[in-house]
Amino acid sequence: MDESAPLAGCSAFAWLVGASQLLGVTSVVLTGVWMGHYRGGFAWDGSSQEFNLHPLCMVLGLVFLQGDAILVYRVFRNEPKRNVKVLHGIIHLLALIISIIGIVAVFDFHRAAKIPDMYSLHSWCGMATIILFCIQWVMGLLFFLFPVASSWLRASYLPVHVFCGLVLLVMAIGSCLLGMTEKLLFSIMEPYSLFTPEGVLANVLGILLVCFGVVLGYLITREEYRRPPNPEEESLSVHFKTLTEGGSPTGP
Amino acid sequence: MDESAPLAGCSAFAWLVGASQLLGVTSVVLTGVWMGHYRGGFAWDGSSQEFNLHPLCMVLGLVFLQGDAILVYRVFRNEPKRNVKVLHGIIHLLALIISIIGIVAVFDFHRAAKIPDMYSLHSWCGMATIILFCIQWVMGLLFFLFPVASSWLRASYLPVHVFCGLVLLVMAIGSCLLGMTEKLLFSIMEPYSLFTPEGVLANVLGILLVCFGVVLGYLITREEYRRPPNPEEESLSVHFKTLTEGGSPTGP
Repeated sequence: MDESAPLAGCSAFAWLVGASQLLGVTSVVLTGVWMGHYRGGFAWDGSSQEFNLHPLCMVLGLVFLQGDAILVYRVFRNEPKRNVKVLHGIIHLLALIISIIGIVAVFDFHRAAKIPDMYSLHSWCGMATIILFCIQWVMGLLFFLFPVASSWLRASYLPVHVFCGLVLLVMAIGSCLLGMTEKLLFSIMEPYSLFTPEGVLANVLGILLVCFGVVLGYLITREEYRRPPNPEEESLSVHFKTLTEGGSPTGP
Repeated sequence: MDESAPLAGCSAFAWLVGASQLLGVTSVVLTGVWMGHYRGGFAWDGSSQEFNLHPLCMVLGLVFLQGDAILVYRVFRNEPKRNVKVLHGIIHLLALIISIIGIVAVFDFHRAAKIPDMYSLHSWCGMATIILFCIQWVMGLLFFLFPVASSWLRASYLPVHVFCGLVLLVMAIGSCLLGMTEKLLFSIMEPYSLFTPEGVLANVLGILLVCFGVVLGYLITREEYRRPPNPEEESLSVHFKTLTEGGSPTGP
């Protein structure tokens, strides 16, 4: 019985990671179907088809990839920390690039259609999320990948970095849901209340995004899924630190 | 220097709790101003003035009081655990009653105005939040206040209860923001894009709610603000447990 407990934990972990990926991929596909099938597809010409890239890029970049960038610390918790850090940074960079394409798409569409920018709660929350996401990425790079800060500063910043990462994921999902509500009321206000298929599809997408956030949040915060302490890695790191600055090592 | 560190921690804690209360109270007041000043005030007659009770009740009950019910475990972390549990349950009950009044108000208004129910993403997220909130409250009551479950079951359920509490607070804030976006687009779609005062007020309210959630989330998840272990309380609890069922004690 004692030996089966960790196995059961591993099995639950695998199922939860699988569920998170299924929820994430389904969300991206449903966003594609919504914009592709119901809203006329995609283009890059200032039309509403360019706008359609906005939801797709935000769900793919700011939600799915951001979530997976955080998740690598749990999925690859037995791999060398340096490699996981690099992967974490690369997926975040990809998420950031895709998100910026999504933001350019909506500003481009607004300019062409003479729609004012940045007046809605969605735009305020979304812009706050993307600005904080950029700051978080640069800070993470400076503190943990090319450590320019002292060990003490890194150790102090680590819990803030982890907390802000989870806050940003939640803010990204919230901003997506606000944008979806805006889009539905702008496009199908009357039929929406009659449970039109497009409205139901968007609602299901919203619930899937919430579920993605909940499963990710559980995987990230659960104590037993944390990276186990690696004495060899720590001693190497201590040795390196002692040689360079005489401090004690830390990292996300 | 060593002695000043805990004092600095206490001071930061006090400032953060103060900030959370300021954010929460300001959010409730701004919701009252929005509905009272811009939307015609309050009534209980099936009119749009009855609807106006809905946002006020949800921000007060489901966000502010739910947040404070969680916060009592940090603010009163040196008080007897039993008293804090009772306070936690009572504030949650108050939050639940106020939230149910808010839900009755919107269904009543919909019936009178012949508006379909439960078609929007806001209604799906909001209803999911309130149903899960009810389940969480009943489970908490059964597990921790009148413990009918075994010690092992209570210990297993505790981290799930804590995680779900935070998820519910986030879902409540998200549902409020979705509802606010709906209300703004139903009421002032055209002037909203011209930065009309009502729209700006609602956007500021939305940002304050997000900030309330972030500060609460930080206070709740920060390790150093947790309830310190109390050997006397534990030994008394062990004694009681040994007498009654021979298990080991746990509690939120």
